Amino acid sequence: MLEVCLLGTGGMMPLPGRALTAMMTRYNGSSLLIDCGEGTQVGIRKRGWSFHPIDTICFTHYHGDHISGLPGLLLSIGNADRTEPITLMGPRGLETVVKALTIIAPALPFPLEFIEIKEDIFTFQQKGYCITAFRVNHNTPCYGYSISIPRAGKFSSEKAEVNEVPMRIWNKLQKGNTVEWEGRVFTPDMILGEERKGLKVVYCTDTRPVKSIAENAENADLFICEGMYGDDMMLAGAKDKKHMTFSEAAVLAREANVDELWLTHFSPALVRPGDYMEEIKKIFRHVNMGKDGKSKELVFEKEDEDGR
Amino acid sequence: MLEVCLLGTGGMMPLPGRALTAMMTRYNGSSLLIDCGEGTQVGIRKRGWSFHPIDTICFTHYHGDHISGLPGLLLSIGNADRTEPITLMGPRGLETVVKALTIIAPALPFPLEFIEIKEDIFTFQQKGYCITAFRVNHNTPCYGYSISIPRAGKFSSEKAEVNEVPMRIWNKLQKGNTVEWEGRVFTPDMILGEERKGLKVVYCTDTRPVKSIAENAENADLFICEGMYGDDMMLAGAKDKKHMTFSEAAVLAREANVDELWLTHFSPALVRPGDYMEEIKKIFRHVNMGKDGKSKELVFEKEDEDGR
Repeated sequence: MLEVCLLGTGGMMPLPGRALTAMMTRYNGSSLLIDCGEGTQVGIRKRGWSFHPIDTICFTHYHGDHISGLPGLLLSIGNADRTEPITLMGPRGLETVVKALTIIAPALPFPLEFIEIKEDIFTFQQKGYCITAFRVNHNTPCYGYSISIPRAGKFSSEKAEVNEVPMRIWNKLQKGNTVEWEGRVFTPDMILGEERKGLKVVYCTDTRPVKSIAENAENADLFICEGMYGDDMMLAGAKDKKHMTFSEAAVLAREANVDELWLTHFSPALVRPGDYMEEIKKIFRHVNMGKDGKSKELVFEKEDEDGR
Repeated sequence: MLEVCLLGTGGMMPLPGRALTAMMTRYNGSSLLIDCGEGTQVGIRKRGWSFHPIDTICFTHYHGDHISGLPGLLLSIGNADRTEPITLMGPRGLETVVKALTIIAPALPFPLEFIEIKEDIFTFQQKGYCITAFRVNHNTPCYGYSISIPRAGKFSSEKAEVNEVPMRIWNKLQKGNTVEWEGRVFTPDMILGEERKGLKVVYCTDTRPVKSIAENAENADLFICEGMYGDDMMLAGAKDKKHMTFSEAAVLAREANVDELWLTHFSPALVRPGDYMEEIKKIFRHVNMGKDGKSKELVFEKEDEDGR
């Protein structure tokens, strides 16, 4: 199960009831955060989640509304007695920005490990997550993130038999390990069928609607996309400020054939994003407005009778 | 009238409903902030106050819970179209800390002016406020602040007559100006009686209860003091971490003969500060628990019949 929570859905500045941008996932005991605006800590507490298991923090870019909550969050993670490293990931400049901000969090009890993304697309495996960062189009280097949980193929006794795999190592192979046994090397594919559909969440803000987004969001279970402006009349402003209207996000969701779209990163001037719901549903039916604390549990597809 | 609002009352980490430490005053169109923890911006919005008139920001010290909200606040003040300078004031290191934090607020439309306090006591006049910073005792250099609004003496027609002050310059003199008129220099004291009782708010966190606090808080209209721990059993911890218990703050208030004490900067473990109210009232009767948004309007004492 992959749990997803929008901790904050505001762009630019925090409002009462609308913290700045942040999204968190939990999978197999490891928490992952994308962006960390002011209010992220309170959002985590409101959701009832913990600071300690945050292993990974990804940044789309370094505008204040996406990272201002970081030094406070790191202090709170330290107060939760974490000593294991935290991996931080983001565009060039990450280490410089984080080291400047942590002037007020000088003695953290855990190390920070930095991954600065230079490529247009970059994939990284971390604690069971497959994280792909893809370049988008904002007024500063900015990345969207695809967070996926791959799912191995089903166990096949036929393949195990054909490949003469001893039963006592089946379990280890099913867990993805390569096993050496009585002079032979066994790999997981020797007992497993084809890889099955996993889970995929794509998070994308701040950007114009570019091709890389639809490509990377393809067939996602959940596509979380910025919608700075609800009104199509704001398109010129959206182009100028390198943001999107709700309609543009909905077109991306349709192109990418995602299961569900959540809009987030609302302009402070956009008091009731829900007012635009009916219009946007005409473009893409499976749209929901994000709001602080909005959560979902994604589960692997059910198998047929003989599935495992 | 001097308006006071506790924007946040939490120490260490923000909680739902309890933002980190910050206090704001408004007087004569100029807003002054002491400390700026995460949540300060939202506190200002909830109170219905504006970002634009914030002329002065004082810091007690630079632990994260007292300054983490600064870069976001500065961005929001910028979005409120301020171009006039903002004066920042705090212990040594102010400029270094602020310049590091504002890496995520790089193009502010107003200049920042820095006053780094090196003395044990330092007084500064700013926009009608008389600000006195006094050294307290924490595990890093830390200051308390006395914010006072002085009040000139009453107009005295007898003095004006004795000093032969022409009636047409009375008004200018009453406003505190020195006036040259027909070759003579006139000063406000030539038409005013003795200075009257003004208004005084004293703000003090994080610190052990030291003598400088009672001295500087003497006869304050409002004394806002840290109370990290409610339970007297926490005294050893308070000494170790250089904080105070409620009782210690109440003893200071009694010594300083203040009109009213508000407690603030509560430990995250202190869920219901009000539980200790009755006990603390035995030490100092005029105590109130701070909470986010707690406000008061302080007004000059009423005059007798012939007062102006």
